[in-house]
Amino acid sequence: MRWNGWGDPAQAHELPRAVRALLPLLLGRIRRPPAAPALDEVRIADCALTAEDFAGFAAVVGSDQVDASAEGRIRHAGGRSTPDLLRRRESTQQVPDAVIRPGSHDEVRDCLALAAARDIAVIPFGGGTSVVGALDPERGAHRAVLSLDLRRLSGLLKLDQVSGEAVLAAGTTGPEAEALLSAHGLELGHYPQSFRYATIGGFAAARSSGQNSAGYGRFDTMVTGIRVATPTGDIDLGRSPGSAAGPDLVRVFLGSEGIFGVITEVRVRVHPVPTERVFEAWSFPDFASGAEGLRAVAQNGGGPTVIRLSDEAETAVSLAQVGRIGKALAKGASVVTVYEGDGIAERRERTAALLAAAGGTSSGQGAAEEWVSGRFDGPYLRDSLLDAGVFCETLETATTWANLQSLRTAVANALREGFADAGAKSYVMCHVSHVYPTGASLYFTVLAGIRSDPLTTWLPVKARANDAILAAGGTISHHHAVGRDHAPWLAQEIGETGIRILTAIKRELDPRGIMNPGAVVGASAPLERIG
Amino acid sequence: MRWNGWGDPAQAHELPRAVRALLPLLLGRIRRPPAAPALDEVRIADCALTAEDFAGFAAVVGSDQVDASAEGRIRHAGGRSTPDLLRRRESTQQVPDAVIRPGSHDEVRDCLALAAARDIAVIPFGGGTSVVGALDPERGAHRAVLSLDLRRLSGLLKLDQVSGEAVLAAGTTGPEAEALLSAHGLELGHYPQSFRYATIGGFAAARSSGQNSAGYGRFDTMVTGIRVATPTGDIDLGRSPGSAAGPDLVRVFLGSEGIFGVITEVRVRVHPVPTERVFEAWSFPDFASGAEGLRAVAQNGGGPTVIRLSDEAETAVSLAQVGRIGKALAKGASVVTVYEGDGIAERRERTAALLAAAGGTSSGQGAAEEWVSGRFDGPYLRDSLLDAGVFCETLETATTWANLQSLRTAVANALREGFADAGAKSYVMCHVSHVYPTGASLYFTVLAGIRSDPLTTWLPVKARANDAILAAGGTISHHHAVGRDHAPWLAQEIGETGIRILTAIKRELDPRGIMNPGAVVGASAPLERIG
Repeated sequence: MRWNGWGDPAQAHELPRAVRALLPLLLGRIRRPPAAPALDEVRIADCALTAEDFAGFAAVVGSDQVDASAEGRIRHAGGRSTPDLLRRRESTQQVPDAVIRPGSHDEVRDCLALAAARDIAVIPFGGGTSVVGALDPERGAHRAVLSLDLRRLSGLLKLDQVSGEAVLAAGTTGPEAEALLSAHGLELGHYPQSFRYATIGGFAAARSSGQNSAGYGRFDTMVTGIRVATPTGDIDLGRSPGSAAGPDLVRVFLGSEGIFGVITEVRVRVHPVPTERVFEAWSFPDFASGAEGLRAVAQNGGGPTVIRLSDEAETAVSLAQVGRIGKALAKGASVVTVYEGDGIAERRERTAALLAAAGGTSSGQGAAEEWVSGRFDGPYLRDSLLDAGVFCETLETATTWANLQSLRTAVANALREGFADAGAKSYVMCHVSHVYPTGASLYFTVLAGIRSDPLTTWLPVKARANDAILAAGGTISHHHAVGRDHAPWLAQEIGETGIRILTAIKRELDPRGIMNPGAVVGASAPLERIG
Repeated sequence: MRWNGWGDPAQAHELPRAVRALLPLLLGRIRRPPAAPALDEVRIADCALTAEDFAGFAAVVGSDQVDASAEGRIRHAGGRSTPDLLRRRESTQQVPDAVIRPGSHDEVRDCLALAAARDIAVIPFGGGTSVVGALDPERGAHRAVLSLDLRRLSGLLKLDQVSGEAVLAAGTTGPEAEALLSAHGLELGHYPQSFRYATIGGFAAARSSGQNSAGYGRFDTMVTGIRVATPTGDIDLGRSPGSAAGPDLVRVFLGSEGIFGVITEVRVRVHPVPTERVFEAWSFPDFASGAEGLRAVAQNGGGPTVIRLSDEAETAVSLAQVGRIGKALAKGASVVTVYEGDGIAERRERTAALLAAAGGTSSGQGAAEEWVSGRFDGPYLRDSLLDAGVFCETLETATTWANLQSLRTAVANALREGFADAGAKSYVMCHVSHVYPTGASLYFTVLAGIRSDPLTTWLPVKARANDAILAAGGTISHHHAVGRDHAPWLAQEIGETGIRILTAIKRELDPRGIMNPGAVVGASAPLERIG
């Protein structure tokens, strides 16, 4: 992974010519940003760890797995939100004091106990793809902060082919997991945009949702068990597929983003690799009619594996990318469907009837195939935009079907008005990519031509979007999670009583407050109560 | 509801003649039990509430909703497990000091605050159908105990037809909820055996699962939001159908059985009332081949709304009930399927192919219709058996498909051996009634001819079955919940760290420990830590 951008540098994507032509029309004159420092030019603070700290962690993981090099520390300085990438372009950067790479559950457990005893904060680090500030090297009230890199916890630990369950080590990446499973004719089918780098433990900790969620569900629903090391004890949960043995404590750790402990193993439902895949794109007069089509499909059940709807603004830019800019803005809203697995013909027929009834017209398989082939490339395009001086960021929420339009309008307006007040032209696009019987997600991509500092311009606009999401009844995140960026808004969503529940669990499992301080419940969590 | 048995006395079911003939063959000579006391013959302790207590609660709910009558207290003395019913046949009974009937969320909240201030334990009481001791009038360390009867919290509070969501007051019973929804062409489709009496809040608090779970899911999966009053604050959860806004705290309250607070409103997913229903029964050579058939159906998806498999012993008795006892034991294992909703023809065809491939033979619709028509009557039959001196109880668990046979054998053996060691003949039946892609439930019905006191004979046998469940990898409950009866086994399932999490939440929300003391986490929970 590029230290200051997305993915494999060899895969970097130049902006398509049509997009380069379009940008000044949408955003005004764009200025290229100042050159960013090379990795060895970045200034960082001295490592705060003592020789005794190093010896202690080396005794647990081996001295070759304790990394206090500047490069190691800078590569673990944060995630991959646009603010993260902008911070990676600064000359002085906040970084953890060292990177520790445990190789087993027991080593994780011992690292946490040692960190608690030595008053050192711990930031669990999987694929490094958080876009909500969950990986900020925040030390809280502690004297140092470590990045606990979990990539060595990798592999297929157990496979039960009869039950369709696999136990994966938490640091296994998406492609590694699928390669291990496909050797047995199985797959997980979880494809978030971060798929190529993110880890199984990260999917669980952040409540990820992938592009095939209509077919295989959110990651939450794939998880049947979990193993966690906390500073005060291990836990191994999930005995059976259905249970009434008290509250489902697996759900306490799904979405916990490292504040209670470290997920070391995840048991997941797997299914046979589908042998057939069928694509079909649809065109709707507008977003509203497209949303009605998706609602009908989601409430009917047994439909496509992937279904997504781009609004008019996103449809236009996506068509522009393939060179049809002239007619793009008249094209309405596009829908992509993909079908995998059994009974495709029936499912497609039923879905097609519902989409047609809602005003959709089939536009064949080409556009759907194009979407699939480029579906992990968005982050590369963002790097190219940032290099060109165009601000680009995404954010997401979800709500009921009845509230979808008004939430979309409220968030889009907050983004547009926020940028306008800062004197920046912006272009806001939106798509629905996760559907449920009762509602759907909304995923916004915003482009802006910012003439002053992009980070200080963006943060108040993002705050305004968050305020709008909560005021309009949305959730603060559908699948990006809370991290530090959304933590100040969480109490509005789950109430003070909800924050008290999370804080009580944290106080019990992590009484010293070393685990990912400031994430999810924020810095204001009353941990001091327990001294 | 009969005060000392199940349901409407007018609906009481005599044992079919074939069953009466069969019982001595299976269980030896049966002696009728001594006559049970009438309600007004039951001895109970004096009410421990003071005049000040009465005045306080009357000020909250109105004096007509505070009931300290012997009848009211006896009617709230417990749930409907066989031990509960045996205790209702004793001359002296443990009962709550009074019954309070709040009429709104705010009245519930005020009752809890008052009870906490006055050192009185509170047992939330919905339909009174718990079979795990969740309604025992346990006062713990407090000076009195109240039953908080929630039946006045009844009604359809909100309906969003576009999104397919309804908000129901927690005390609404199953039939009331379905009647309110059917006026709008909608249904919930949740049909546990307790359906006729149990409440929406009880379904949520106990993580209920209904007979249509293959089609509409467990109650857990129907719940999209929840409102709870705790002794220290309200909470209102569930903003959107999918969210990554931290851990899903709805799940903290599903399965909490009143130990954190009182669920007052539940938001649920609803769907159109199905217009068509198709039944089909199947016969398999044995339980093992039937289980393979169910596994294929569950892993394929999009199958029946109801699917259940009775083992050889249950199949024989069920055939005996309709008068075919001679051939019954040679009949193998029977499967019932029911299809509702869209695409029945396709779903039935696909399911039939899978069941036939596993060795099943269709036996037409008759047997399936018989099962449907009698599906809520099991508890009436139990009353008749108890009246005849036959001990009858049920228990349930779940596990992965790979572990299903060995768990079934282990539990059945524990039951048989437990009764044999107590000198009682027994007959153990089992069915699978809830299937998942990765596993299934196992539901045991045991009959025994007990010559000494049935309760003191049963409790050690039940303990042995619980030990066997945990040793063989099952969950301590699939849908009956934990209550007090399973609480001593919960730590084996979720670990000491799991118990610490539940206790930490309880300490935060209910620092005085007044909520349902002894349930779920047991009496040994270290609540004293907070003084």
